[in-house]
Amino acid sequence: MWQMNAPVSKARLYVDDDLTEGHAIHPTKEQQHYLVNVMRLGDGDAVSLFNGRDGEWQAVLAREGRRGCALTPQQMTRQQQASPDLWLVFAPVKKARLDFIAQKASEMGCSRIWPVRTDHCQVSRVNDDRMLANAIEAAEQTERLDIAEIMPFALLDEALQACGDDRTIIFCDEASAGDAAANAITRLAEAGSIDRAAILIGPEGGFSNAERRQIDRFQNSLKLSLGPRILRADTAAIAALTCFQSVCGDWA
Amino acid sequence: MWQMNAPVSKARLYVDDDLTEGHAIHPTKEQQHYLVNVMRLGDGDAVSLFNGRDGEWQAVLAREGRRGCALTPQQMTRQQQASPDLWLVFAPVKKARLDFIAQKASEMGCSRIWPVRTDHCQVSRVNDDRMLANAIEAAEQTERLDIAEIMPFALLDEALQACGDDRTIIFCDEASAGDAAANAITRLAEAGSIDRAAILIGPEGGFSNAERRQIDRFQNSLKLSLGPRILRADTAAIAALTCFQSVCGDWA
Repeated sequence: MWQMNAPVSKARLYVDDDLTEGHAIHPTKEQQHYLVNVMRLGDGDAVSLFNGRDGEWQAVLAREGRRGCALTPQQMTRQQQASPDLWLVFAPVKKARLDFIAQKASEMGCSRIWPVRTDHCQVSRVNDDRMLANAIEAAEQTERLDIAEIMPFALLDEALQACGDDRTIIFCDEASAGDAAANAITRLAEAGSIDRAAILIGPEGGFSNAERRQIDRFQNSLKLSLGPRILRADTAAIAALTCFQSVCGDWA
Repeated sequence: MWQMNAPVSKARLYVDDDLTEGHAIHPTKEQQHYLVNVMRLGDGDAVSLFNGRDGEWQAVLAREGRRGCALTPQQMTRQQQASPDLWLVFAPVKKARLDFIAQKASEMGCSRIWPVRTDHCQVSRVNDDRMLANAIEAAEQTERLDIAEIMPFALLDEALQACGDDRTIIFCDEASAGDAAANAITRLAEAGSIDRAAILIGPEGGFSNAERRQIDRFQNSLKLSLGPRILRADTAAIAALTCFQSVCGDWA
């Protein structure tokens, strides 16, 4: 239904610019192409904008020239909110599934997505820009107000050191028994130590014994079992993020 | 490490045949091609077999002719176990994501995968054989002992009627507030009514109001919220299955 005062937004875009009432911005060329040629929007059509800082705004489109457009924020529709401080640290997998992990981690509300090199990792390079593009596209669709931070491909040890002593490391290791996910996460929530967490997903070959010992040395690490079946890395990531978000995160 | 008495299986296959010690079976031509040409297995190599009835067996391969092979079960390695009586009922999405849902539902241990036509569903045909192939492939990889039943594309109402009064319908509707997933599922587990469940995932446009009323009329339906972000259908399916399996299902 079309209402004069609150037109329904026909697209939702992430932009870099500051968003303030009445200050027109110019989206990227690709975004202008999407709005004008793909979505076929015209003067006066409404578009939702967010930049990770200023909340969500409804903006009005004005065509410029044959192919361009500007967007003028008119009204804030949602206040800015931070996503939970929840990292996904994972051994990257081959291309299509890597796109997928970036999209899904974004949908599930991760604040940081961090591919790490492990002993049994079969990938030697990760395209950061492509991961970011996937995270942004998913954030636009999932109605997030921020974009997950994409970290450059690093050694597992770097990510573990960055977790330090004050971030709970939730370690999903198919080779270890671990606690049943629901019990472990519920106990964690009851203990109150849930401000910062990192979910750690191993490569298809699992972590090496040396890596397992290294992770176990972190006092704030928690081993989790994701059931009796072997899950692929992307499924395990969604499942572990669901366990966390539904008990300790922003689903509650 | 290679051990004379218990060679490590180099492949895991679903077969139709009965599995009994010493009775050779012939896998399909595609499977023979996979074993001989892709995996390059030879005489004496070990392959794991399951058929959904007789548990998991380790079989020994014997080459036959230039391209073929037979497999002789030698030792049962796992007893047959049924998956939880858990259905995934969902409005199908476009091709690649439909493959994906069949794979993931299989990984997550669904006993039945049932695509249904809803008012806002954008898909008019579903390829059952393709869904079954995806479910089988995922079962082989995920180390399930059975294959999810693939139901033919039907009306939502048919699936609801099949649920009847003795199957809990877990209804994930982005448009409804619903209870936070963890709370709702925990209460469900405490009430003990978890023998049979069906997870119901709507189309991207959501259920129609008429459909919502129809679902609400089932006394054993439970509305679930999967958090503040809009999840794609495939993500919602994995998330809802995780909530169920981790609390009421076979992860506990």
